[in-house]
Amino acid sequence: MKNRSALDAYSNGAVWWDTAISDIKKNSIVLRGFPIEELIGTISYSQMLYLLLCGEVLSEKKARLLECVLVAGADHGPRAPSIAAARMAATCGISFNSCVATGINVLGDVHGGAAEKAMKLFYLTNSILEDDLQQSLSDVVNEQLNRLEKEKEKLPGFGHQLHDDDPRVRRLYQLAQALIDEGEISGQYLKMAEAYRTLLEERKKKKITMNVDGVSAAIQCELAIPAEAAKGIFALSRGMGIVAHAFEELQNGVLIKGPCPNREDLVRYSGPSIRHLEK
Amino acid sequence: MKNRSALDAYSNGAVWWDTAISDIKKNSIVLRGFPIEELIGTISYSQMLYLLLCGEVLSEKKARLLECVLVAGADHGPRAPSIAAARMAATCGISFNSCVATGINVLGDVHGGAAEKAMKLFYLTNSILEDDLQQSLSDVVNEQLNRLEKEKEKLPGFGHQLHDDDPRVRRLYQLAQALIDEGEISGQYLKMAEAYRTLLEERKKKKITMNVDGVSAAIQCELAIPAEAAKGIFALSRGMGIVAHAFEELQNGVLIKGPCPNREDLVRYSGPSIRHLEK
Amino acid sequence: MKNRSALDAYSNGAVWWDTAISDIKKNSIVLRGFPIEELIGTISYSQMLYLLLCGEVLSEKKARLLECVLVAGADHGPRAPSIAAARMAATCGISFNSCVATGINVLGDVHGGAAEKAMKLFYLTNSILEDDLQQSLSDVVNEQLNRLEKEKEKLPGFGHQLHDDDPRVRRLYQLAQALIDEGEISGQYLKMAEAYRTLLEERKKKKITMNVDGVSAAIQCELAIPAEAAKGIFALSRGMGIVAHAFEELQNGVLIKGPCPNREDLVRYSGPSIRHLEK
Amino acid sequence: MKNRSALDAYSNGAVWWDTAISDIKKNSIVLRGFPIEELIGTISYSQMLYLLLCGEVLSEKKARLLECVLVAGADHGPRAPSIAAARMAATCGISFNSCVATGINVLGDVHGGAAEKAMKLFYLTNSILEDDLQQSLSDVVNEQLNRLEKEKEKLPGFGHQLHDDDPRVRRLYQLAQALIDEGEISGQYLKMAEAYRTLLEERKKKKITMNVDGVSAAIQCELAIPAEAAKGIFALSRGMGIVAHAFEELQNGVLIKGPCPNREDLVRYSGPSIRHLEK
Repeated sequence: MKNRSALDAYSNGAVWWDTAISDIKKNSIVLRGFPIEELIGTISYSQMLYLLLCGEVLSEKKARLLECVLVAGADHGPRAPSIAAARMAATCGISFNSCVATGINVLGDVHGGAAEKAMKLFYLTNSILEDDLQQSLSDVVNEQLNRLEKEKEKLPGFGHQLHDDDPRVRRLYQLAQALIDEGEISGQYLKMAEAYRTLLEERKKKKITMNVDGVSAAIQCELAIPAEAAKGIFALSRGMGIVAHAFEELQNGVLIKGPCPNREDLVRYSGPSIRHLEK
Repeated sequence: MKNRSALDAYSNGAVWWDTAISDIKKNSIVLRGFPIEELIGTISYSQMLYLLLCGEVLSEKKARLLECVLVAGADHGPRAPSIAAARMAATCGISFNSCVATGINVLGDVHGGAAEKAMKLFYLTNSILEDDLQQSLSDVVNEQLNRLEKEKEKLPGFGHQLHDDDPRVRRLYQLAQALIDEGEISGQYLKMAEAYRTLLEERKKKKITMNVDGVSAAIQCELAIPAEAAKGIFALSRGMGIVAHAFEELQNGVLIKGPCPNREDLVRYSGPSIRHLEK
Repeated sequence: MKNRSALDAYSNGAVWWDTAISDIKKNSIVLRGFPIEELIGTISYSQMLYLLLCGEVLSEKKARLLECVLVAGADHGPRAPSIAAARMAATCGISFNSCVATGINVLGDVHGGAAEKAMKLFYLTNSILEDDLQQSLSDVVNEQLNRLEKEKEKLPGFGHQLHDDDPRVRRLYQLAQALIDEGEISGQYLKMAEAYRTLLEERKKKKITMNVDGVSAAIQCELAIPAEAAKGIFALSRGMGIVAHAFEELQNGVLIKGPCPNREDLVRYSGPSIRHLEK
Repeated sequence: MKNRSALDAYSNGAVWWDTAISDIKKNSIVLRGFPIEELIGTISYSQMLYLLLCGEVLSEKKARLLECVLVAGADHGPRAPSIAAARMAATCGISFNSCVATGINVLGDVHGGAAEKAMKLFYLTNSILEDDLQQSLSDVVNEQLNRLEKEKEKLPGFGHQLHDDDPRVRRLYQLAQALIDEGEISGQYLKMAEAYRTLLEERKKKKITMNVDGVSAAIQCELAIPAEAAKGIFALSRGMGIVAHAFEELQNGVLIKGPCPNREDLVRYSGPSIRHLEK
C-alpha cells in the first residue's frame, strides 16, 4: 500500500477514509475498540495519547514515566523558535490556535527532532545486537560511532548549546531507574544510551552529557514507542509552553512584535549598494 | 499596555521579550518559580498545563477533572476538519509536526470554539448574579436567553449535529458531581449550565441536550480557567487525535489524498459555461 | 445558505464540494469558464488572481495597477513578524513551504489587515453618499471620523510606526493618478482617502500621512475588489518576501534561530521568585 | 557557515538578523539595492519575485515566461489537498490568511514538489555533460534512467494521475519555443526534458507524457532558478487558487465542513471490535 496515490488506492477498492483509531456514530464514540465513556476518568492523558497512537493501554507506571517526558519538555522560554513564533503570531491579529499552530509548525527535524533520530539509532543498535548475539553492546556502539563519524553526523541526543548539566536529564534518569528497579521496564535502552555517552567521551577525551532529547528517546524506546511518533509526542509536550506563551502575549495586547528592536547590532543589510534600473 | 505596538512599548522602557512563565539559564529551568526538576515526576500533564497557563498548581483532584476534559475531546474521527486536514497533509510530503500544525490551525471560533463562548456566557451570568443579589439564577439565565434570541445567536454548548445523548457528557457530569459531593468544587457553573438547558427546553418545547463543549466549559469555569484560554486547552486535547491520525496516515504511505473520490455527486462546478477571452 | 453546517447543507441537497471557480476533468482545466490554455501567456499574474477571486478578467491597465500594489507590499525586512517567523522556521528542519506557511499564517487583522479595514470604511462612506445625495463627501467623512473617535478606533490606512513619507505611497498615488487621467478608473476612492487625510489633519492639527495600506485600499476599491479579499491579496504580495527570506535562511544553513541573542536587555523573566511545591 | 546554531554564529561575530534582500530605514525601502519607488510600476510581479529570490532583474521576455508558469499552476480544483484544506479551514472560524496558510502548508515534497526534483535531475544531467564533453545527451539521460530504475525512483515531471494530454503542457511548450526561436533562452533544458521523455518511452514501450511540473521545471532551469527555490515559487502560483477558494468558502458561510459526507462507502473504521478496560 506504500506510496500509492489515494486515487489508485481507491480504484483498487480501498475506502477513501479508513482508520483503525476511531469509530464515530450517533451517540457512540469508540477509540481503538474502547467506548469513550469507559476511558474518561479512568485513563490519563499519556495513556490516551499512547492508546490513540499505538493501539493499546499503557500500564499506569509506564504511563507516568511517559508523562514525565511530556512535562520535562513543556517549555524552554521565548528564545526557542517555536515559542517566539507563537508569541509573535499572537501580536498579529489571528485566532489563538493559529498562534499555537504557528509554534508547532516549526517543530521539525532540527527543533524538536533529536529524540526521533536518537530512537532510530537505539532501535537500530538493538536490532543489530539481536541479529548477532556474538557482538557486545560496546562493539555495536563503537561501530555506530564510527559510522556517524564517517558520515559526518552528530550523535543525536548528546550535547546542548546551553546546558551541560541539564536538571531535566538527572531527574528523568532517576525516575526511569526507579521503574527499572521495580522490573516495570527492562532498562536496556537507558543502558545503551549511557554506553553511547561513555564511549563518545573516551573518543573525544572530554566530558559528554546526555541532553533531554537523549534521555527522552531512551525512555520512549523502553515504552516501545515507534521512533517516527516522537516528533508528534513532543508537539503535545512543548505544546503546553506554546499555548501558555501565546496566551500571555495575547493578554498583553501588544501589537506587531517583530523578533527584536531595530538596532544596527541586531539587524543588518548586507546586499548590494544603491543601484538603479537600466532604462 | 494594551494595543500598543511592540516598538512603542520598547521605546517606553519595556524589555522586548518579557515573560512571567519561564526563566531559562545555564543548567536552570524555572517555570512559574518552580525548578523544573521538582515538577517532573511530581505534577501531572494537566497540572503542568494549568501551572504554565494560570500560574499556580491545581489540586490533584481538580487536575484529574481537567484531565478528563482533555481525554474527552481527544478524537472525533476523520470527518472532523482538523483531523482530515492533518491526514491530508500527511500525504503531501511535509514534516510530521507540520501535519499536526495543519490540523491545529483550523481549530478556531467555530471548530473547537464553543467552549470559550459558553465560558464567557457562564462568567458573565455569574458576574451579573454577584452584582445584583436580588436576581435569581433563572432570572439572569432568562435575560441572557432573551438577549441571545434578540441578537440571533445560538446558545453555545448545547445541541450537536450528530449526537443527542453524547456519552462523553454523561460521564463528565458524573465525574464532576463526585467532586461537588467531596466539596472540591462548588458546582455553581454546572448548576448554571443545567439551568440554561432546562430553561431553553421550556422555551423551545423540545428536548435540548448539553454537548461536550457545554459541560467542558462548565467544568473549566469551576477550575477558574480564563475563557480566552479554552481554545488552547482544546488544541492539546484534540491534538492527541491529530497526532495519532497524522501518524496513521504517514504510516499508510498513501500519496496526495484529497478530500474525497472524484464523483459527480461529491464535486461539482457551478461557474460560467465555456467562454473565450476577447481579442 | 449562511452559517449552516456542511452536514445540514448536504442533507438539503447541496453537493459537498461545489465551486464556481474551477472545473477539472481529464485533459481539461476550465477556470471561471475559460480553458486554461487560453489564459496562459495571455493574461498576467494579477489578471489571473482577479479572475479566480472576482470572476472576470480585469483590463490590462487596471491589472497593471493591481500589480503595483502587489509589488509595493512585497517585503519589509526581517523585523516584520511574518518575515521573521518564516526565517526562524527555516532553521528548524521543516519543508520550505511550511516555512512560507508559517509566515503567511501570521498575516491577520493587525499585521497586513489595515487595507481591509480601510476598504470597508471607504465602501461604507461611498454607500452613505449614494444613499443620501444631499450629503457632501466632507460631511460623511467627518461623521465617520466622529464615529471612529467615539468608538476609540484608529482611522485605518493612515500613520506608520516607522515611515512618515513612505516612498511607496507617493509612487502608487502617481501611478493611480495616471489612470484617472486616462479615464480608466474614476478616482473617487483616491479622492475619498485624501479627504480622510486632510480632515483628520485639521482635527489633529498635525501632519497626517497616508500609509501603504491606505493607498492600496483606495486603489483596490477603484478596482471593485471586495474588502474581505484584501488580506488574501496581501498574502500573495508579502508572500514574495516571505518566500525569498525563507529561501535565504535555508541557504545559510544556520540551525535553531530564536528571535534574538540571549541578552538581559532583550529577554527577561518577570514571574515569581524561586519557590517549591508543598509536600 | 552551514549547519551551525544561530547562537554559535552570533558568538563568532555574525549579526543576528543579516540579509542581502532588504534594507528598511525611515522613509527608505531598498530591495537588492533598488529603491522600491523605482521598482513599483516598472517591474512586474514575476520580476519582483525573481529579484527578491535571485538578486537580479530578469528580462521582460523571460519574466513573462516565468509568469506563464505561475499562471499555469494557479488552480487544480477542490480535490487538490491544498485547496481542500484551505476551504475546510474557511469553515472553522479562523482568519482568512490562516486558511491560506493551511493550504500552503501542505505543499511539500509530494504535493507541489515534483518540479524541484525534476530541476535537480536536469541540473545534474547538465553538469555531467559539461564535465565530460565525450558523452552525448542520450548517454547521460540513459545513465540517469538506469540509476533511477536501480534506486526504484520515479522519473519526476512525467506522468499524471488524471491527465495524459495536459493542456497546460502544450501551451507552455509553445510559449517557451517562441523564446528559443528569438534567442532569449537557449532551449537546452527543454531539449533535455524531451530526451528524458522519448528515452523513457522507448524503455517502457508505451506513451509517456510530460506533466506540468516537468515543463515548468525545464523552463525554470532555462531561467537559472535554483532547484531549491521551486517549491516557494509554486506556493505563489497555487497560492492564487488557495486564496480564491478560501474566499469562496468564506463567502458561502457554511460551517465545519469535513472532507465528505458521512457515508459507509467513504468513511470506515477498521480497528478492533468493542472491548473494555481490564479492572
